Amino acid sequence: MKPTEQGMHCVIAEDVEIGRNVILGHHVIIHPHVIIEDNVVIGDGVILGKTPSKSKTSTLKTGDLMPLKIGQGTVVGAQVILYRGSTIGPESFIADQAVVRERCQLGTRVVIGQRSTVENDCQIGDYTKLQTAVYLTATTIVEDHVFIAPMVTTTNDPYVARTEARHAAMQGPIIHRGARIGGGAVLLPGVHIGQEALVAAGAVVTRDVPPYRLVMGVPARVVRQVPEEQWLFLPDGQPME
Amino acid sequence: MKPTEQGMHCVIAEDVEIGRNVILGHHVIIHPHVIIEDNVVIGDGVILGKTPSKSKTSTLKTGDLMPLKIGQGTVVGAQVILYRGSTIGPESFIADQAVVRERCQLGTRVVIGQRSTVENDCQIGDYTKLQTAVYLTATTIVEDHVFIAPMVTTTNDPYVARTEARHAAMQGPIIHRGARIGGGAVLLPGVHIGQEALVAAGAVVTRDVPPYRLVMGVPARVVRQVPEEQWLFLPDGQPME
Amino acid sequence: MKPTEQGMHCVIAEDVEIGRNVILGHHVIIHPHVIIEDNVVIGDGVILGKTPSKSKTSTLKTGDLMPLKIGQGTVVGAQVILYRGSTIGPESFIADQAVVRERCQLGTRVVIGQRSTVENDCQIGDYTKLQTAVYLTATTIVEDHVFIAPMVTTTNDPYVARTEARHAAMQGPIIHRGARIGGGAVLLPGVHIGQEALVAAGAVVTRDVPPYRLVMGVPARVVRQVPEEQWLFLPDGQPME
Repeated sequence: MKPTEQGMHCVIAEDVEIGRNVILGHHVIIHPHVIIEDNVVIGDGVILGKTPSKSKTSTLKTGDLMPLKIGQGTVVGAQVILYRGSTIGPESFIADQAVVRERCQLGTRVVIGQRSTVENDCQIGDYTKLQTAVYLTATTIVEDHVFIAPMVTTTNDPYVARTEARHAAMQGPIIHRGARIGGGAVLLPGVHIGQEALVAAGAVVTRDVPPYRLVMGVPARVVRQVPEEQWLFLPDGQPME
Repeated sequence: MKPTEQGMHCVIAEDVEIGRNVILGHHVIIHPHVIIEDNVVIGDGVILGKTPSKSKTSTLKTGDLMPLKIGQGTVVGAQVILYRGSTIGPESFIADQAVVRERCQLGTRVVIGQRSTVENDCQIGDYTKLQTAVYLTATTIVEDHVFIAPMVTTTNDPYVARTEARHAAMQGPIIHRGARIGGGAVLLPGVHIGQEALVAAGAVVTRDVPPYRLVMGVPARVVRQVPEEQWLFLPDGQPME
Repeated sequence: MKPTEQGMHCVIAEDVEIGRNVILGHHVIIHPHVIIEDNVVIGDGVILGKTPSKSKTSTLKTGDLMPLKIGQGTVVGAQVILYRGSTIGPESFIADQAVVRERCQLGTRVVIGQRSTVENDCQIGDYTKLQTAVYLTATTIVEDHVFIAPMVTTTNDPYVARTEARHAAMQGPIIHRGARIGGGAVLLPGVHIGQEALVAAGAVVTRDVPPYRLVMGVPARVVRQVPEEQWLFLPDGQPME
């Protein structure tokens, strides 16, 4: 199917599936192996289905990639780059200049903020919001209903690019359901941020954060419980009220 | 009026006012409701007059927006996105890849650094400079002659995305005349940075900073006065010398 | 010579030298005074040979610039901006949305991560890797085999934009051979990071770091030696093993 509406100077490969009522802006580039579901809106200057181009010294492996799939009703801002091999869930919002690399799985109604980067092999749950200029390192796991404030940094390499042991040890943070990360915080490799936990702005998290706890400082320490009126869910998973 | 000079593959809507001696690069996109004054230079790949595209879970309200207005003599770098509803003052400089959202008011001779984001409803005074990759959260107020170093983060939500009370409490920082913010600093919601105050690089500012004071650390504490030879203005507003 | 392969809607100036087996994506813009060596790949939406456009209040001087030169076998990602006057060494990788300003010298097999900025007059040695969203301030010197993790900030102005003395004192950090900088760290103007030193994630480095030492915290302090199994080189410069 052709886009219902399409701007000027677009480039659309032949091997692309486009649903009903899809709107493309100007200067959109769609590479092969892209599936766009119904009611999707794509902004100006967006690049869809990019294939990873490795540096000669990269240690990443890129096998055969599935198509990029963009779920129904999702809105993609301007100058965004979405790689082949990822799935963007329905009714999501990918803001201007964001980049989602290959083999990521994004759920329903996810928000990826402007200029944010989601590196390869990340998982992001339903209703999770990344704000502006968030950096999710490769293999980060973010569960449902998580909120990540602007300019948060994550890391995944406890050996900081040295020794062979690092390849086995590489793991991004695991951010559990309903957790919140404040602006400018830094999360070290593999830390767990517990359910409904809150990391204060500017904190550097060097070890696991227990559920329902507020941590702050460098390195981050537990200072108190998250007030119950800010919870979304009870520890047993039932929604509040 | 037509641009005096215009690159290849531009897309210019009909409802656009263009002054004398305006130069457009290649691949420029100008949406409706844009006013460009005399002697403005627009770089390659710029998008002007973008309309906000809301996520389905966004709490932002976007009413009718005024045109985007770019003041005379202003230079806009490459791949910049400027939203409808904002005013960029004269003789300003918006560097490559910067984004200015809707309903912002920028003064005269303002500099917005490369890759910086100015969210909706910000006010920025004359001669203020944001360097590279600065993040100004929605409703931030920055007065005249302020200097913000690279990678500074601001926040505006004291409830970090929870409880209804946050909608009333949302307020970005207020940065007063002649203040300076060092690289990588994080400012918490609603903090006042006093006139001519200096926030050291990497500080996390959790409470108001008095005028003419230097703060540093996490959380930031006052360590001394800003040396008088670095002042631009006396406390009564008169310029030094 | 013409590119071997070229996407749609490209704009290529007449004064451009292109080697053998060069591949351009879609929407590529090449300004005059650009030299592209053999086997280079340029991604979609890239801008090559941009000339600095100064703000009216800038204190930078931009004299006559040499051509931009891209060494053989280098891969440039999508939406990258490379300025005239810089040299990108062979077999390097410049990832999506990165910006390299004028008069930079990048060595062989350098990686510049996605969304990273290399300001004017930087030097980067062979095999050095910048990860995502790193900010290198003007005049930063980075030697060979350095690793810089995501979202690292550097600064170069000890007077934070005030007093005339600052023009003489401006100096970015000097990062020596084999050093590593953790995610989200902030480096103050002119600090030396010693050979094979390691700056922990989130550290704020306010003074020189001795070789082979690990520093952490705000401000950063030496906590121990870097374990020998993580060294690349002995103090005399010989490679380990």
